[in-house]
Amino acid sequence: MKNFELYVPTKLVFGEGEIKKLEELVPKDKKVLMLYGGGSIKKNGVYEQVTAALKNHTVVEFGGIEANPEYQTLLKALEVIKNENIEFMLAVGGGSVIDGTKFLSSAALYEGDTPWDILANRIRTYVGLPFGTVLTLPATGSEMNSGSVISRKETKEKLGMGGPGLFPQFSICDPTVIRTLPQRQIANGVADAYTHVMEQYLTYPADAFLQDRISEGILQTLIEIAPKVLADPNDYVAAANFMWSCTMALNGYIQKGVPTDWSVHMIAHELTAHYGIDHARTLAIILPSAYTKKFEQKKEKLAQYAEQVFNITEGSVEDKAKQAIEKTEAFFQSLGIKTRLSEYTDDYQGFGAKVAESLKAHGMIKLGEHRDITPEVAAEIVEMAY
Amino acid sequence: MKNFELYVPTKLVFGEGEIKKLEELVPKDKKVLMLYGGGSIKKNGVYEQVTAALKNHTVVEFGGIEANPEYQTLLKALEVIKNENIEFMLAVGGGSVIDGTKFLSSAALYEGDTPWDILANRIRTYVGLPFGTVLTLPATGSEMNSGSVISRKETKEKLGMGGPGLFPQFSICDPTVIRTLPQRQIANGVADAYTHVMEQYLTYPADAFLQDRISEGILQTLIEIAPKVLADPNDYVAAANFMWSCTMALNGYIQKGVPTDWSVHMIAHELTAHYGIDHARTLAIILPSAYTKKFEQKKEKLAQYAEQVFNITEGSVEDKAKQAIEKTEAFFQSLGIKTRLSEYTDDYQGFGAKVAESLKAHGMIKLGEHRDITPEVAAEIVEMAY
Repeated sequence: MKNFELYVPTKLVFGEGEIKKLEELVPKDKKVLMLYGGGSIKKNGVYEQVTAALKNHTVVEFGGIEANPEYQTLLKALEVIKNENIEFMLAVGGGSVIDGTKFLSSAALYEGDTPWDILANRIRTYVGLPFGTVLTLPATGSEMNSGSVISRKETKEKLGMGGPGLFPQFSICDPTVIRTLPQRQIANGVADAYTHVMEQYLTYPADAFLQDRISEGILQTLIEIAPKVLADPNDYVAAANFMWSCTMALNGYIQKGVPTDWSVHMIAHELTAHYGIDHARTLAIILPSAYTKKFEQKKEKLAQYAEQVFNITEGSVEDKAKQAIEKTEAFFQSLGIKTRLSEYTDDYQGFGAKVAESLKAHGMIKLGEHRDITPEVAAEIVEMAY
Repeated sequence: MKNFELYVPTKLVFGEGEIKKLEELVPKDKKVLMLYGGGSIKKNGVYEQVTAALKNHTVVEFGGIEANPEYQTLLKALEVIKNENIEFMLAVGGGSVIDGTKFLSSAALYEGDTPWDILANRIRTYVGLPFGTVLTLPATGSEMNSGSVISRKETKEKLGMGGPGLFPQFSICDPTVIRTLPQRQIANGVADAYTHVMEQYLTYPADAFLQDRISEGILQTLIEIAPKVLADPNDYVAAANFMWSCTMALNGYIQKGVPTDWSVHMIAHELTAHYGIDHARTLAIILPSAYTKKFEQKKEKLAQYAEQVFNITEGSVEDKAKQAIEKTEAFFQSLGIKTRLSEYTDDYQGFGAKVAESLKAHGMIKLGEHRDITPEVAAEIVEMAY
């Protein structure tokens, strides 16, 4: 086990009907900016619950934060924060709204010339403008961590940021929000959380027995609940286990003491930046190729994963490892997610080389847990995923 | 799954050699009281590491906090805190030193007549004197939660306290501390952590799939590492997995969304208060009887536990459940822990009735996840454990 530091100070408030607790959780003496996305919260009842809970607070609203939160949109929100002297933010939405709010938390107190530098120069945030969240889409885990990913259309960039100042003060997770989600978003949420676990678990073995077992437990739970939440989003038991698994997949606990990979995410981000493919789907496209490419280095853990998660006990390490990759791709497909780039676009020839260029431009020249996935190797992985 | 709130703000610093980080973790502008136990830290090198890291801090020392931290001893420490204007505390020890420090954290700011009221009247602590810990004995999980148990010899009482103001600001967990522990304390640590998980897991099923899997993962890990840490405390992999399992067993994560029992602890505390038997050993004495007594209510979860932890797949629910209790008692015995009260004392006749009286005196008249373990039922459980 590697040495680690673990610090997760977000207060998580979980369960049906808990949105009403906003009344106490949001400070009454501060001017609040409520941020949301494309307006789904006005159709599913969340907006009414939030505004009812905040009826005695001073609240300014900012809607329209898109999937893969866009820098230009966030700059407009930043103007509102400064013009209105906002002291607290409330993100009501999925990972995109929460990630956008984290960027604003940092940018609001940033003293440099242009807030894009926070992303471009990977500036960590130690103190941010305080905020809480109401999660409307289980997937990213952003509700209980301090990371964020922001997109910039004009340059086709998608970059990450973070720091201990960017934990939500609280997050309210009411599993009934999934009742009105499109199947596509539920499927994306499962695939996203599943891949989050894989990026932290499917590396070289590090003798972290408990972390491995918790990771395997999240994967097993996602496999168990996926068909249920897709068949019936009113199944509260399945919805609650789905939502809690997504949070636990990326709140820091399974990443501590172990090597982490994240190359699948770094490469997949390029597919969203270039083609606009849903984040979770880009992960499902890249993961099988990435593990096939790094088979020799990952086969031992792949075999463990085959045994512990899929109960594959027969065959050699290689046999089990291969079946594990196939089972993973089949699981994504069972969610209705296509796992080849050519199933999303006809314009894929030469894209591997473009990914390599883009990774180089962002200094991402050594990806993966062994830091040996060069832009050239990344290009090969993309080509294997055509 | 039940609704829940989860808030665990302690920063955990884990791994070999991390004690040196005290230099940065302990505030330099505050007068520090360093608390410890019977002096083992002066033999195992921890005292030297701590004092070296704090050589530029102002530190007052208070040693001699005993196992089952004693109220009268803590009152002396409280005098030091007041006389010396202590602003920060550092607990260097096991669960007893940390629990004692939590009591002091609360008592230092308590404005009532007598600090015993915090325990006797179950007063929750929302703000305490800040403190950090250096853990020297993996067992209680006190390093990452806000609970504490304090003993009072003159009245043979052992009572709990807690509240969100009692989380350590940080805890340093260096697994190499177990190298110099007596086998007895290592065995106690394993049994203590194991029972912590059982109190939160072995209740009625609540459809909390992930919580169950994490609990099962901790139990499996403890079963895996127990013979290794007992055979060779220098086995770092085993020590690290032991230490992390103990923390995860009682840092709140597996308790959220599920019913919890804690009747084994409440009854077992009476055995320590009366006979001075080690805390972990009292748990091992009481647990098998408690589960046998509540067999009908617990058999479904006992059967799940049999399957998932012990791989017992044959037989009826009742068969599996019975084997699960036997396997648990055998596991405690494999640690060198005797599981019958009569193996510790000849003076046990009539003790069941004494336990019933004591529970009544402390208002603990409805224990267990169904609140149906009356003092009379508790007496029966104790008698079954003679």
